[in-house]
Amino acid sequence: MNFNLTESLEILERTPQALEVFLTGLSENWLKNNEGEGTWNVHEVIEHLIEGEKQNWIPRLEFILAEGESQPFPAFDRYAHLNPKAETTINQKLLEFKTIRLQNILRLKELIPFESTLEKTGFHPAFGVVKVKELIATWAVHDLTHMTQILRVMAKRYGTDVGAWREYLGILK
Amino acid sequence: MNFNLTESLEILERTPQALEVFLTGLSENWLKNNEGEGTWNVHEVIEHLIEGEKQNWIPRLEFILAEGESQPFPAFDRYAHLNPKAETTINQKLLEFKTIRLQNILRLKELIPFESTLEKTGFHPAFGVVKVKELIATWAVHDLTHMTQILRVMAKRYGTDVGAWREYLGILK
Repeated sequence: MNFNLTESLEILERTPQALEVFLTGLSENWLKNNEGEGTWNVHEVIEHLIEGEKQNWIPRLEFILAEGESQPFPAFDRYAHLNPKAETTINQKLLEFKTIRLQNILRLKELIPFESTLEKTGFHPAFGVVKVKELIATWAVHDLTHMTQILRVMAKRYGTDVGAWREYLGILK
Repeated sequence: MNFNLTESLEILERTPQALEVFLTGLSENWLKNNEGEGTWNVHEVIEHLIEGEKQNWIPRLEFILAEGESQPFPAFDRYAHLNPKAETTINQKLLEFKTIRLQNILRLKELIPFESTLEKTGFHPAFGVVKVKELIATWAVHDLTHMTQILRVMAKRYGTDVGAWREYLGILK
C-alpha cells in the first residue's frame, strides 16, 4: 500500500494544468480523432473528467461521510457526458475542468480534517464496502488513466504514418 | 495517412512543457517507482528522451538527407541512458530536455525547407527503406508513448490502494 493524501493531491492538482499546456492550441485534427465507433475523442474525455468532478468524486465522498455503510451511494453514469449539449471549444472545457477541480480540491481538504477520516467506509452499489482513501486513490488513478487515453488516441492517428517503426511502438497496438 | 509537419511540431513543442508542468515538484516516491525489474522509472524515461534528442532523431534525419539510401544509418542504443552517470534532479533533466528539444525543433525546420524533403528516403539498419516523414511521425508518437509510460508507471503505484475500483481501471492491468 502506498496511499498518501499529500501525494494524491500532487496528481489531482497537476492534471488540469498539464492538460491545459498539452492541449491548448492543438489542431482539431488531434482533438476530434477517436479510436473508432463508440470510442471517445479528446473533447469527450475532458467532458467526462468534468462530469466526474460534478457528479462523482466529491458527491460520493460527502455521501460516504454522511451515510457510512448505511446505504449504497448512487451509481455514477459514466456516459452522461455523451448526452447532447452546447458545443464548447477545448479552451472552454479546459477552463471549466481547471476551475471545478480547484474548488473540489479545496472541498476535499475540508472534508478530510484527520488522518482517521481516510479510513471511513461507505457502501458502493456494485463493490460493497469501500474506504475513503480508496475513493481518493481511484480519483488520482482515474486522472492518469484518462491522460493516457488522450495520448493513445492521438498516437493512433499516426498509426500508419510511422511506417516500419510501427513495430517498436507498443502504443499503436 | 494523416501526417502533417505543422501538426507533428505541435506535439514535439508541447511534450517538454507538459512534462515540466506535470513532474516539477512531484514527490520522489512517484518519480522513483518503476514497474518491476528491468523497467524504467520516471527519471529514466526522461533520460531516454534526452538521449533520443542527442543521438537519434536529428542525427538520423541529417544522415538520411546526406546519404539517402546509399548506406544504413547507425543503430540507436535505446538503453544508452542506463549507463552510469552523475545523478541529476528531475528539474535538471526537464530543463535539459526542454533546451535540447527547442534546439532540435529549430534544426528540424532548417532541414525541411520544402514539402518534398519529407518524401526523401534513407536506409534503416533493420527495416530497410524509410521516409523522412515516417521518421518525424515516429518522433511524435515516441513522445506520446513515453508520456503514456510515465503515467502508467505512476498509476501502478496505487494498484492495490484503489481497492475494488481496480476492476474499472484498465491502466492497472
